[in-house]
Amino acid sequence: MKIAKNSKVVFIGDSITDFERARPYGEGIGFCGDIGKSYVAIVDGLIKASYPDAHLRVINMGVSGNTTRDLKARWQTDVMDLKPDWLGILIGINDVWRHFDTPHITENQVGIEEYRQNLTELIEQALPILGGGLILITPYFMEQNKSDPMRQMMDAYGAVVKELAAKYGAVLVDLQAEFDRYFACNHPMSVNWDYIHPDLASHVLIARAILKQLDYAW
Amino acid sequence: MKIAKNSKVVFIGDSITDFERARPYGEGIGFCGDIGKSYVAIVDGLIKASYPDAHLRVINMGVSGNTTRDLKARWQTDVMDLKPDWLGILIGINDVWRHFDTPHITENQVGIEEYRQNLTELIEQALPILGGGLILITPYFMEQNKSDPMRQMMDAYGAVVKELAAKYGAVLVDLQAEFDRYFACNHPMSVNWDYIHPDLASHVLIARAILKQLDYAW
Amino acid sequence: MKIAKNSKVVFIGDSITDFERARPYGEGIGFCGDIGKSYVAIVDGLIKASYPDAHLRVINMGVSGNTTRDLKARWQTDVMDLKPDWLGILIGINDVWRHFDTPHITENQVGIEEYRQNLTELIEQALPILGGGLILITPYFMEQNKSDPMRQMMDAYGAVVKELAAKYGAVLVDLQAEFDRYFACNHPMSVNWDYIHPDLASHVLIARAILKQLDYAW
Amino acid sequence: MKIAKNSKVVFIGDSITDFERARPYGEGIGFCGDIGKSYVAIVDGLIKASYPDAHLRVINMGVSGNTTRDLKARWQTDVMDLKPDWLGILIGINDVWRHFDTPHITENQVGIEEYRQNLTELIEQALPILGGGLILITPYFMEQNKSDPMRQMMDAYGAVVKELAAKYGAVLVDLQAEFDRYFACNHPMSVNWDYIHPDLASHVLIARAILKQLDYAW
Amino acid sequence: MKIAKNSKVVFIGDSITDFERARPYGEGIGFCGDIGKSYVAIVDGLIKASYPDAHLRVINMGVSGNTTRDLKARWQTDVMDLKPDWLGILIGINDVWRHFDTPHITENQVGIEEYRQNLTELIEQALPILGGGLILITPYFMEQNKSDPMRQMMDAYGAVVKELAAKYGAVLVDLQAEFDRYFACNHPMSVNWDYIHPDLASHVLIARAILKQLDYAW
Amino acid sequence: MKIAKNSKVVFIGDSITDFERARPYGEGIGFCGDIGKSYVAIVDGLIKASYPDAHLRVINMGVSGNTTRDLKARWQTDVMDLKPDWLGILIGINDVWRHFDTPHITENQVGIEEYRQNLTELIEQALPILGGGLILITPYFMEQNKSDPMRQMMDAYGAVVKELAAKYGAVLVDLQAEFDRYFACNHPMSVNWDYIHPDLASHVLIARAILKQLDYAW
Amino acid sequence: MKIAKNSKVVFIGDSITDFERARPYGEGIGFCGDIGKSYVAIVDGLIKASYPDAHLRVINMGVSGNTTRDLKARWQTDVMDLKPDWLGILIGINDVWRHFDTPHITENQVGIEEYRQNLTELIEQALPILGGGLILITPYFMEQNKSDPMRQMMDAYGAVVKELAAKYGAVLVDLQAEFDRYFACNHPMSVNWDYIHPDLASHVLIARAILKQLDYAW
Amino acid sequence: MKIAKNSKVVFIGDSITDFERARPYGEGIGFCGDIGKSYVAIVDGLIKASYPDAHLRVINMGVSGNTTRDLKARWQTDVMDLKPDWLGILIGINDVWRHFDTPHITENQVGIEEYRQNLTELIEQALPILGGGLILITPYFMEQNKSDPMRQMMDAYGAVVKELAAKYGAVLVDLQAEFDRYFACNHPMSVNWDYIHPDLASHVLIARAILKQLDYAW
Repeated sequence: MKIAKNSKVVFIGDSITDFERARPYGEGIGFCGDIGKSYVAIVDGLIKASYPDAHLRVINMGVSGNTTRDLKARWQTDVMDLKPDWLGILIGINDVWRHFDTPHITENQVGIEEYRQNLTELIEQALPILGGGLILITPYFMEQNKSDPMRQMMDAYGAVVKELAAKYGAVLVDLQAEFDRYFACNHPMSVNWDYIHPDLASHVLIARAILKQLDYAW
Repeated sequence: MKIAKNSKVVFIGDSITDFERARPYGEGIGFCGDIGKSYVAIVDGLIKASYPDAHLRVINMGVSGNTTRDLKARWQTDVMDLKPDWLGILIGINDVWRHFDTPHITENQVGIEEYRQNLTELIEQALPILGGGLILITPYFMEQNKSDPMRQMMDAYGAVVKELAAKYGAVLVDLQAEFDRYFACNHPMSVNWDYIHPDLASHVLIARAILKQLDYAW
Repeated sequence: MKIAKNSKVVFIGDSITDFERARPYGEGIGFCGDIGKSYVAIVDGLIKASYPDAHLRVINMGVSGNTTRDLKARWQTDVMDLKPDWLGILIGINDVWRHFDTPHITENQVGIEEYRQNLTELIEQALPILGGGLILITPYFMEQNKSDPMRQMMDAYGAVVKELAAKYGAVLVDLQAEFDRYFACNHPMSVNWDYIHPDLASHVLIARAILKQLDYAW
Repeated sequence: MKIAKNSKVVFIGDSITDFERARPYGEGIGFCGDIGKSYVAIVDGLIKASYPDAHLRVINMGVSGNTTRDLKARWQTDVMDLKPDWLGILIGINDVWRHFDTPHITENQVGIEEYRQNLTELIEQALPILGGGLILITPYFMEQNKSDPMRQMMDAYGAVVKELAAKYGAVLVDLQAEFDRYFACNHPMSVNWDYIHPDLASHVLIARAILKQLDYAW
Repeated sequence: MKIAKNSKVVFIGDSITDFERARPYGEGIGFCGDIGKSYVAIVDGLIKASYPDAHLRVINMGVSGNTTRDLKARWQTDVMDLKPDWLGILIGINDVWRHFDTPHITENQVGIEEYRQNLTELIEQALPILGGGLILITPYFMEQNKSDPMRQMMDAYGAVVKELAAKYGAVLVDLQAEFDRYFACNHPMSVNWDYIHPDLASHVLIARAILKQLDYAW
Repeated sequence: MKIAKNSKVVFIGDSITDFERARPYGEGIGFCGDIGKSYVAIVDGLIKASYPDAHLRVINMGVSGNTTRDLKARWQTDVMDLKPDWLGILIGINDVWRHFDTPHITENQVGIEEYRQNLTELIEQALPILGGGLILITPYFMEQNKSDPMRQMMDAYGAVVKELAAKYGAVLVDLQAEFDRYFACNHPMSVNWDYIHPDLASHVLIARAILKQLDYAW
Repeated sequence: MKIAKNSKVVFIGDSITDFERARPYGEGIGFCGDIGKSYVAIVDGLIKASYPDAHLRVINMGVSGNTTRDLKARWQTDVMDLKPDWLGILIGINDVWRHFDTPHITENQVGIEEYRQNLTELIEQALPILGGGLILITPYFMEQNKSDPMRQMMDAYGAVVKELAAKYGAVLVDLQAEFDRYFACNHPMSVNWDYIHPDLASHVLIARAILKQLDYAW
Repeated sequence: MKIAKNSKVVFIGDSITDFERARPYGEGIGFCGDIGKSYVAIVDGLIKASYPDAHLRVINMGVSGNTTRDLKARWQTDVMDLKPDWLGILIGINDVWRHFDTPHITENQVGIEEYRQNLTELIEQALPILGGGLILITPYFMEQNKSDPMRQMMDAYGAVVKELAAKYGAVLVDLQAEFDRYFACNHPMSVNWDYIHPDLASHVLIARAILKQLDYAW
């Protein structure tokens, strides 16, 4: 597996990552569930099961509702100060969503240029301290109609993530592609009525998609 | 994978299985979490991720605190009436535990002979309707000192499960062995102060142990 | 307006109609909100505002989650015993939805033939006691992609409603068409993430669509 | 309709306006109900239904219990900073009511001269930034006995609103007259035991009264 | 005082009497407040203060929302079985009110003839077991406009109480007259926005009105 | 009655006075109960019933657990700033009680000399602004055994109140004597298990004792 | 110690015994606190500390508010069916108390003859099945004034317990004497304002008094 | 007994000591339970029972989760400012536990050298003001397998306590030895599933162990 033993691994993002994690840090005694219930906990569990001697320190730093703008405001305390070896970022869904669920509240919408700029700044600030590596995960929308305006915008933001992954040599997880593969055989309504928030099964799907890119051995 | 497409899969047991599942049936709309948060949900998620077209119907029928005696009382409604193709059973921890946490309340303790008898009856009643197969999972105690009296008793009950798995041709999951492998490198306190209830990471470990015996392909 | 003074008007349906109405009957002292907060209350308010001497008795009999199967089970107590002059029916969304959000729980799904049959029985039982008239409202899905499988099925069920409205001379409210007209200029995400439950503004839209068919004068 | 497309419309007042709106701003994602449940939401819904392409931004800034004195204290942040195109004001009920429900707590009562002065200041401050227009709504008391002392005082305060509407060229909504028209055929007890707070039906009546003055086409 | 030492005194009625009394019987240990907080407790306290050796047993049997129809249904268990020496009845407000707050729900309204009939039956059933006496208290409406329809109806029902008091030789408490005397100098809004439910001060006024008719010595 | 019309009357003390009054001031709209449920509300009600045109402003400023030390700390804001015409003080029970319920926590006990000193300071500060008069109420203990140590101490503190009432010409209410008169015929257990906190009936007794000294006419 | 190893010991009584025990049986896993927090738990702890190999099964069967009348009603299920070796009874406080806190509710009071009769029946029913022995504990009142009427009555009931202990050869615990010894140096207010319910320290005192009579060795 | 009459005795530690004590000080009126429910309350009760005239002031200053590091931070306010005569310290369990339940969160772990240093500083600061004496209680782990890594570390920390007790002449309570004695005949599961937190019975055991070292006479 690409992640070395005893590494510290931080995942940061929005509600997809957050999912009831503890504050201020999403880690703690196992049964307390402080790591939350998202893909972060599943990644942690799968690594523990396959590599019981890996002794990774996995920390969930997601915050529900966050956009790249919010990440910038807490990047120092929530990422830099933690000195992670590996950093996973899954952000952008709210940057897009606010254009559609509150189209008139324009001050809460993050346009694609600001998104690229914000994400670039976050990456450039973090890269120098990452002894391990960077994982970039594309935002997604479970809607399978690619001409839907929100899906179109989400795909455009996902393209920015791919572009930056290539530019900075990050591990790329094309999560939209993973979901599209799954929804080729299933209707998104079976996961969540809102086409955004994964159920526990879909969090497992996300975790698997990430680990596939990290040479994890089942 | 051994489980055929479109199969109905029921898991039954105690609090390890239950973990906040819905009543009367532990299934439902994905994001409602009705399947609970135990290894059952992880098994469901892992299969969905690898076999998106499997369309299994996975149902969690665990009830916290149950012993084999309790399973007998609800076997008709909670297993037989559901007509499952596959059935997974993880039971025995409470049969053993009551000898130690309430040693004076003897009427709540299930001795090993009654345990074997109960489990045999459950299996023989269910086998004829299982078009798929039976999965037997050993009870476990995270305590690594094999001379501890409760660990000794748990091992004895686990041996009964192995004996019955062999007798009835069931898929056997030696969960105690899986946990021992994990705790060779980790202290049980990092999972749960009570050495019994898995954290989410350990539920992933259980799910993996089950799927390993079902020829699941990651 | 088509509805005569002093009429008793009952609306029945699912969560769209229900919206926190009182039990067992959705009516009561004004400020207690027993009529709920759905389009039923808005219809009541609009009629009161334009026709202060109409003195209608408007009763909300919606129940969240209901399908036509559920309406049959409570039709006698919840419609027939009330002896309404006018009856409005908005049902079918859950008949369709269960095929998509819980595709494996087939016993909860109402197929189109059963839907037609159920609705026909309800109408034929009620028609003889309706001194005023019958209002049939089509189910809808806010999704604007007409090739989406759930939208397709919803359109088919809506066609049944239109067919029955013609057959029995009911007032027809093509609510799907109303929403399509609205979403031609707006994205459904601005109403509700689940594309089903109206916000208060959309309840006003529903109320207006109904009153438009009743020769209501603003 | 008098209000142009893409306008920002703010309504401010007391509990009649407030009705469970979100803080600090009464707007947001549709189904979250952040706009509250008062006439403001109904106005928003009626405009959306008739003019789906209007794309107004309607914001509810009511605060329960407010008098003109309270509005002065929050006018900068709650009106001026929002830069509305249109502004609707419904205030004065509490200015009057405190003379009657707590006659001995004189420091909480706003006399008619202070009321006129406060309201004048609010209007003169806001008028220069309103690109659209100003809507002034008279306070009201559902009591139909015009010789009741509280009704008499409310009528006097309502006269001040009419006077200021004329002076500043505002759109005037004579809400007391609207209610009197309604209560000519109905007893106020059927709306609310306190003769002040509208039920949802009466909020619809208020919304209609406002829209009637704005050339809204049903 | 008319009530003899060691008498058992029962008061029955609606929410005015009830005011948080204990179930099934409104009596108990002093500090537990089981007698409720209405005029019944004040009557009890005033008698205890002036006649510390009276040792009355005062029981509050009011039930919120009750009409004479409801009293009939519970008269055997709640009055007859208690074998009171004295009985006080304050009923009729809800019999009238339902005509005005829910004018369309006619099945909940008790007309004046039924009111007279119900009250007569209650009195005739109780009189034979009352060793002490009967106290009849008129219903009231704080509204001071005597041409208000609800006030007019309340006065008519009050006249029935006076008529029956005369017919059966009961102690009459003209509570409407008491309140009118008070509201000659005060506005009803200072007691309660709903013009019906007394505040604690008005409960003291009711208690005083009752005791005035019982030759209570302050 | 000694208290002139339109007077402002403040009562201050401990939990006996407080009894769920509102903060920061124990007054408000009648039905809201902001004046609390203690003798203060009963005094208010009795005066309103007998003198409906008195228009007193009665304010409850009791705070549970207070001693004279606590009164000193809040005297400026809670008495002086209110500018009362009449002031009633019932304090001292906690000054005594802490010697007996927490004998080892000596820092919470107010000795008799400090009690006299505190009370003197409070009185001398308030007297100059009282246009009406001062009411001093003795603390009490329901215990009827006068050789009980806590009763003895309470009697001593009560003597201080009498001494200061005489010195400053205050209206004296010997509440201990009132309770002794009552308990000559009744056991204190019937009021409250703790022999301190009055039930509602005993609050009426206190109110009557106060009004007896104010030439109140029933 | 008089109680043999492996004995089953049941304590029954009122709130003194009960103190938050579990239902239906006051025993269970240690940390769950099902045995409650009364002297029963302290007795259990002291025996465990001094005799770790005693393995007693101690069960708390107290029910708050109980009198001997209540014990009779549940004696079969709550004592006889449990087949205890030893039985401890602490009852009578409520039999006495109801004469004083609710003197007028005579139907809830258990007179001394009925008390003797009830207790005799309970003892005679239980004695034949007690392989170990019977413990009778006198009721008590912390009041130190022996001429107080409630103390006098409590002493009389305590004398009945002593009489029956002698008659049936039971172990007698004179708990009133124990408390009198303690209150010779302490005021009862330091334990509880109500002079009845022990604090945790006094529960230890009760436990010690019981164990003193059982030849317990510290 | 070693502790003189009228002494002030403070116990400080972690959750074992804390057990629901009041803030900021764990003392108060007896029945309020402010002293908590731990061994501190039992020690208090046993001394009161045997020495009713001792009049100790016992204060519980435990705080759940504390390590020696936390004690240092609050030593001035929570110990020094209280000026105790006797001081009991039970600390170290969390210092050890964090190495095992959160092995990767190293910043929360207190190593043995820091533990010795912290404890030394606390003792040296307190000793000069202790007019009575110092009680040092060893931390413990109920696990009976002495080769368990956490038990080994706990024993090492316990040895530090013994070393410092000898060095500073403190009363030593070897609580681990006490528990080992108890668990020679009982399984730890019967106390608590987590092998750390005592049930009420085990708190009695701790209290007895402490009093044994203080020449307490039962």
